[in-house]
Amino acid sequence: MSSIYGKLFSVSTWGESHGEAVGVVIDGCPAGLPLTQEEIQRALDRRRPGQNSLVTPRKEADTIHILSGTFEGKTTGTPICLAAWNENQHSGDYAEMVNWYRPGHADLTYDLKYGFRDYRGGGRASARETLARVAAGAVASKILKLSCGTEILSWIESVGNVKANIDPSQVTAEAIEASPVRCPDSEASQKMAALIQEVRMAKDSVGAVLALEIRKPPVAIGEPVFEKAQAVLGGAMLTIPAVKGFEIGEGFAASTMRGSEHNDVIRFENGGYHTLTNHAGGILGGITNGETIHCRIAFKPTATIAQEQETAGCDHQNGKLIARGRHDPCVAVRAPVIVESMAALALVNLFLEQKARTFQF
Amino acid sequence: MSSIYGKLFSVSTWGESHGEAVGVVIDGCPAGLPLTQEEIQRALDRRRPGQNSLVTPRKEADTIHILSGTFEGKTTGTPICLAAWNENQHSGDYAEMVNWYRPGHADLTYDLKYGFRDYRGGGRASARETLARVAAGAVASKILKLSCGTEILSWIESVGNVKANIDPSQVTAEAIEASPVRCPDSEASQKMAALIQEVRMAKDSVGAVLALEIRKPPVAIGEPVFEKAQAVLGGAMLTIPAVKGFEIGEGFAASTMRGSEHNDVIRFENGGYHTLTNHAGGILGGITNGETIHCRIAFKPTATIAQEQETAGCDHQNGKLIARGRHDPCVAVRAPVIVESMAALALVNLFLEQKARTFQF
Amino acid sequence: MSSIYGKLFSVSTWGESHGEAVGVVIDGCPAGLPLTQEEIQRALDRRRPGQNSLVTPRKEADTIHILSGTFEGKTTGTPICLAAWNENQHSGDYAEMVNWYRPGHADLTYDLKYGFRDYRGGGRASARETLARVAAGAVASKILKLSCGTEILSWIESVGNVKANIDPSQVTAEAIEASPVRCPDSEASQKMAALIQEVRMAKDSVGAVLALEIRKPPVAIGEPVFEKAQAVLGGAMLTIPAVKGFEIGEGFAASTMRGSEHNDVIRFENGGYHTLTNHAGGILGGITNGETIHCRIAFKPTATIAQEQETAGCDHQNGKLIARGRHDPCVAVRAPVIVESMAALALVNLFLEQKARTFQF
Amino acid sequence: MSSIYGKLFSVSTWGESHGEAVGVVIDGCPAGLPLTQEEIQRALDRRRPGQNSLVTPRKEADTIHILSGTFEGKTTGTPICLAAWNENQHSGDYAEMVNWYRPGHADLTYDLKYGFRDYRGGGRASARETLARVAAGAVASKILKLSCGTEILSWIESVGNVKANIDPSQVTAEAIEASPVRCPDSEASQKMAALIQEVRMAKDSVGAVLALEIRKPPVAIGEPVFEKAQAVLGGAMLTIPAVKGFEIGEGFAASTMRGSEHNDVIRFENGGYHTLTNHAGGILGGITNGETIHCRIAFKPTATIAQEQETAGCDHQNGKLIARGRHDPCVAVRAPVIVESMAALALVNLFLEQKARTFQF
Repeated sequence: MSSIYGKLFSVSTWGESHGEAVGVVIDGCPAGLPLTQEEIQRALDRRRPGQNSLVTPRKEADTIHILSGTFEGKTTGTPICLAAWNENQHSGDYAEMVNWYRPGHADLTYDLKYGFRDYRGGGRASARETLARVAAGAVASKILKLSCGTEILSWIESVGNVKANIDPSQVTAEAIEASPVRCPDSEASQKMAALIQEVRMAKDSVGAVLALEIRKPPVAIGEPVFEKAQAVLGGAMLTIPAVKGFEIGEGFAASTMRGSEHNDVIRFENGGYHTLTNHAGGILGGITNGETIHCRIAFKPTATIAQEQETAGCDHQNGKLIARGRHDPCVAVRAPVIVESMAALALVNLFLEQKARTFQF
Repeated sequence: MSSIYGKLFSVSTWGESHGEAVGVVIDGCPAGLPLTQEEIQRALDRRRPGQNSLVTPRKEADTIHILSGTFEGKTTGTPICLAAWNENQHSGDYAEMVNWYRPGHADLTYDLKYGFRDYRGGGRASARETLARVAAGAVASKILKLSCGTEILSWIESVGNVKANIDPSQVTAEAIEASPVRCPDSEASQKMAALIQEVRMAKDSVGAVLALEIRKPPVAIGEPVFEKAQAVLGGAMLTIPAVKGFEIGEGFAASTMRGSEHNDVIRFENGGYHTLTNHAGGILGGITNGETIHCRIAFKPTATIAQEQETAGCDHQNGKLIARGRHDPCVAVRAPVIVESMAALALVNLFLEQKARTFQF
Repeated sequence: MSSIYGKLFSVSTWGESHGEAVGVVIDGCPAGLPLTQEEIQRALDRRRPGQNSLVTPRKEADTIHILSGTFEGKTTGTPICLAAWNENQHSGDYAEMVNWYRPGHADLTYDLKYGFRDYRGGGRASARETLARVAAGAVASKILKLSCGTEILSWIESVGNVKANIDPSQVTAEAIEASPVRCPDSEASQKMAALIQEVRMAKDSVGAVLALEIRKPPVAIGEPVFEKAQAVLGGAMLTIPAVKGFEIGEGFAASTMRGSEHNDVIRFENGGYHTLTNHAGGILGGITNGETIHCRIAFKPTATIAQEQETAGCDHQNGKLIARGRHDPCVAVRAPVIVESMAALALVNLFLEQKARTFQF
Repeated sequence: MSSIYGKLFSVSTWGESHGEAVGVVIDGCPAGLPLTQEEIQRALDRRRPGQNSLVTPRKEADTIHILSGTFEGKTTGTPICLAAWNENQHSGDYAEMVNWYRPGHADLTYDLKYGFRDYRGGGRASARETLARVAAGAVASKILKLSCGTEILSWIESVGNVKANIDPSQVTAEAIEASPVRCPDSEASQKMAALIQEVRMAKDSVGAVLALEIRKPPVAIGEPVFEKAQAVLGGAMLTIPAVKGFEIGEGFAASTMRGSEHNDVIRFENGGYHTLTNHAGGILGGITNGETIHCRIAFKPTATIAQEQETAGCDHQNGKLIARGRHDPCVAVRAPVIVESMAALALVNLFLEQKARTFQF
C-alpha cells in the first residue's frame, strides 16, 4: 500500500467502501488558509452518486467532517483530518464475490498481493476511495486559487465514439455542471447521454476521454528531471481508477508532427514571455511556462456489468458470474472532479517545492 | 531540481552536457549482485550517438566507470557511483543560445525557474542526462532478470505516419537492434529510415511512438492507491525528454470500448491464474497480474531544427534564431534503451517494496 | 508540520487536544496481521491520565476505534485508521493562554511559525498527540513480536536525583506496571513517588530519565549511513515532547573510557556471534548485532506549573501568568509506553527495509 | 543502505575508503549561490588527517572537484556532484581483516547485513565517508550564512576526564582552530593533548564530548511532530561514526531540575521575543525560537587500537587480532567540522521546508 501522496502537501487517504468511514489526513497545509466544511462539501457533491439517471442509484450523503487542523475557520498548519462515514451499504450484494474474481477488477490482484481481501464492494479498490482525494483536492485548489488565481477544469470530451466539438479555452465550470454528463458541448452532451442509456439497457458499460485544462498555473514549477510537471501530473492521473492513458499538449498526435510545426514561437509582449501557439501544453523541460496546461485522460469502460461473465474463483474453479451491486455505466461521468483534485494535489506540491528554493543571494 | 528517483532503489543522477562528467549514484542496490563495467557499457552503447547516419554525428565514447559500491565483481550493498566523462564538446556551437530561447526547448523555463541557466548544449535539460538513467537501468534490469526472469523490450512502433505491423509477443531484442531505426518490422523500418532522411534534408525533425513490452514481470507488485504500477510506469516514462503521451493496455482505445469487450476473462489453468485476452495490459487495480505489461509512449519531434525560427531572447527582444549543434532528426530512435531503463527503475522499486511487506504471520 | 513517520510502515498522526478527535493512519502495514481493538486499547490504557494521584486527574476514556484496514480480525494491507474522540475538555481552563505565552511551552514558537495558534490546551503541541503514536506503536510492536520475538521495555530510571538500582536484564513488564511511577526498583519507586508528591505540593514539577531495553531485536537492521539504527532510534526519541537527551550503550560515559575498555570482545558460540560485554548497546556501524539494545532518554520537568511565572504576551506586553489546567508534575511517568511505541515504529521500518533488500543471487 | 539525507536539500554520499573516490551529489541546492572549489576545500582541510601529531599520520590531499551543477561561479539549481579521489591507500595494512572481525567495528554487522564485506579499511563504515558530508555541509552552511547570518561552531569540550572551562558564547572559530585538539580553552587544550599522547603511547584510545553552538539560527524552523528541530539535529549527529549520545539545552541535567528552574522567562524587548535564560537550548515544541541552539555530542574512543584483542573470525573461530593501519587515538579531534556539517545539513532542510509553507492568504 502506498496511500500517501506528495512530499510537502502530503495527503494520506484511508478507508474502504464497506468499512466505517473514508477519509484523508493532509499534512503540510500552510497555516492561515480560510477553510470551511461547506466548501469541501461542494466539491464532494460533484462526485456523489445518485445525481441523475446516468449514474449509479446508490444514495450516499457523503457528509464531510473536519476532525482536526482548523481553528476559528482557518487552517492552523497542523494535520487536517477529513472524514465521511459510510452509509447505505448493501454488503449482501457482494456475497458471490467471496469466491469469484470479477473480470476487469482488482479482486484477483489483491488476493495475489495481500493473500487476503475485503471482498465487500471492492474494498480499497473501490472508487469510493476517491472521495478522500476530492476532499483533499478542494484544499489544494483553494491554495492555488488564492495564490496564483489558478483555475482547474475537467470535462467529458468523448464517450465511446461520441466526441464533443468545443474550444477548450471557452469552457466554464458552469457549462460543465449544466450537462448531465459534464460535457459542455450541449449537442454532444445529449448524444452521450443517449449512448450511456443505451449501454445501461444493454447491461454493458462504455469508456470515455476527459479533458483537463489548467488556467493560470503557477509559473516555473516542475522539478527536473524526475518530477517534471508533466510526469507528476500524468503519474497523478494514472492513479485514478480506470485510467489507461494520458496525454499533454498534442500528446500522441505530436508523434506525427514535424518540429517546425510543433515548436511554439516565443514572444516577449506586455512585459512577459508568451507562445503564439501551445502545442507543448504549457510545460517545457518539465517546467511550466505560464501558458494553459492542457491534458487528456482516457478511461476504460466500467468493469462491473450486469451481464453474465466467465471467470475463475479463489477455489481454483472456472465458472460464471453475474455481478450485482449498483454501478455507473460510464464511470467517467463522475470523474471530472477527481481529475481536477489530483491535478490540484500534483501542482500544489510542485508549487510549494518551487517556493522553498527561490532565493536572492 | 528533483534528480532522485525511487524509494528503495534510489538513483540520484547528476551532470550536464558541457560539465565535467555525467553520472548516477545508486543507493539501495542489494548486496551480492554480480556486476561489471562491461555489462553497463553494453546498455550505454545502445543510446550512444554516432551509430549511423540516422542519428547525430556527435562522437562520444561514453565510457562508464564504477567509482564505488562493488568489490571483487559484486555489489556490496553500499552506494554505487557510475560516471562517464564528457568529451567532444563544441561549446562554440551554442554561442547564440546565450541570448535566444530555442523554441520547443527548456531555455526559457530554466531561466524562469532558476533565474540563470547553463546555456551550453541545454545544460541539464540535455538528453545527455539520460546516460545516467541507462547506466542505473542496467543494474535494475539485472536484478529483475535474475530474480524473476523479467525481460524488458522497447522498440519504435511508428515514425510520423509510418507504422510498424508486428505481433509484439514475437519481437526479440536481436530484431530490434538489427534495424537502424530500432523497428523490428523490416519493411516499416526501411520506410522509417527514408522518412527520417527526408526530414533531415528538409532541416526538420519528426516524432515517433515507442512500444514497451515487459515479459514475466514480478507478480503482485504495484502499491495502491498512489503507486499503482501503471502510475509509477507512466510517471517514469513522462520524465523522459520529449515524451508527450503514455498508454497502457488498450490505452485511449479503451475509451471507445464496451465493458463486455474490454474485460479480460480470468482462467485458472496449469496451476495459476491467467487471462484469455490482455486488454488491461498486465495490471489491474494498480497491481501486476503476471501477464505481459504492454505500453505505448509518444515522443514529439526533436525541438532543435536547422531552420530559421522566430523566438524571443533574454534581452526581451523578439527575433530569429538558427540553431547550430548536431542533433537527431528523430530523437526517439535512440530512446528504446532509455524507455527500458526507466521501466526497470520503476519496477525494481515496486518489486523491493512488495518484498518488504510479504509476511506469513 | 511533518506528522508522517516512516518510509515503509508510515504513520500519519493527526488531532489536537481540543479538536474533535486524535488519531493515526498507518500506511504499509503488512496484510494478515491479527489485530483487535482490544490489544491497541491495552497499550493506550498505559498512557491514559487519571490512573493514580501521581498523574493528572483528567479523566479520558481514550477509547480507540479501528475505522479502516482490517477485515475479519486481520489487517488487509490497506491503510489502518485509528481514532479516539476527545472528551472531558475544559477549554475555559485555557482562557488566559489567548494572550500569554507559557514559559517552557510551544505557544510562542507556534505563533512565530504559523502566525496563528490553537491556544486551547497546547493544540497540536499537547502530549495528547502521543496517543496516536501509542496506537500505531501497538501494531508495530506486534509485528516485531510475531516475526522476531522482540520485546521492548521502558521504565523510569530516575526522577530528579532519585535513582533506581536495578539490573536492566532482569526487568519485566509486570514489575514496571506494578510501580505507580513505573520504576521496577520498589524502594526507589517509593522515593520517587514521595518526590513527585512533594513537587506537586510545591506547585512545581520535576524531570526524569527513562531506560529503554530492546531484547531480541531484529538482527542486521539499520541502514548506514544516514539511517543507522542508533540515529533512527535517537531521532524517534527526540520527537517525544519534553525529551532533551538520548544515549545508547555507554552513552556520555563512553567519552571517558579507553578503547581497550569500551570495545566488546566478539565470540562465536552456540552457532552464532555474541559479545562478552555490551558497551556498544547492541549496534555497531549503525547495524544491530543481535545483542540487547540499551538506551537512556532524558525528560525535562513538565513546563506547566501552578506557580505564577513571568512571561510575555502576543500583545507585546511583559507580565505574569498563572497557568490553570490539570497537569502531571512528572510527565515522564506516563512516558514509558510512548518510548516503547516510538522504538517499535523506528525498528519496524528498518526491519521492513532490510527485508526488502535481502537477496540470494 | 540509506546514503541519502534530506528532503529538500538532499545529499547522496558515496564511496568507500579503498575505492576509486569518495563524493556526494547535492540535489535541490537553490540556484544562484556563489560557490567555488576553494571554499569547499577549506572545510575539508579541517577534517584532513595528518595535520599534527595528535591525529593519524595518513597523508591525504583530499582535493575536491566540482563535477557538475555550477556555471560561471554560481550554482545553477541542478545537481552538484563533488568528488575527491582516493590516494595513499595501504590495502596491505588490512590483510588480517579478511577473516577477523575487529572489536568495536562494523566488520561483523556488515557481514550479517550484506553477507559480504569490503574489508579494506572499513569500506563504507570508514570515517573517510564523512569527507562527503563535510563537502556538502560547506554548501549548506553558506546558504544559512548568506540568508540568516547563521554561525555554526563545534569544539572539543572534554577528552576523557579532562574538561574545558569556557563560556560557549565567547568561543570563536579562530580560537578553536588555534588549538591542536580544537578546544578553545588553552589550558584544557594542553592537558587534552597530553592525555591523547599518553593513550597513543599506551596503544589505546580515548573518547570525548563535543559542543555544538548555532548562533542566529533561522527562526521558526522545525516541523512538529516528527521533524522537530531537536529530533532532526540529534538524528543527524547520531549518524556520525562513534557518536553515542546527544543532548540539547540542559540535556540529561534537565532530568534533575524543577520546572520553576528550567522554564525560560520570555520577554518582549527591542521589537522581538527573547528568553532571559536558555535552558531549552533554542528550541521549544520542536521549533527554533531564535536563541542560540546549544548541544553536546558524546564520542566513544576510537575502536581501532594497536593492542592485541580477542575476537572471532568469519571462519567461526575465536582468536586474537592486532589491528594495523594508521588511526587517530581520539577520533573526536577531527570531528568538529563533521558535527558542524551535519548541523548545517539538518538546518538547511528545515529552513527550506519552512520557506515552502510561509504564506499570506
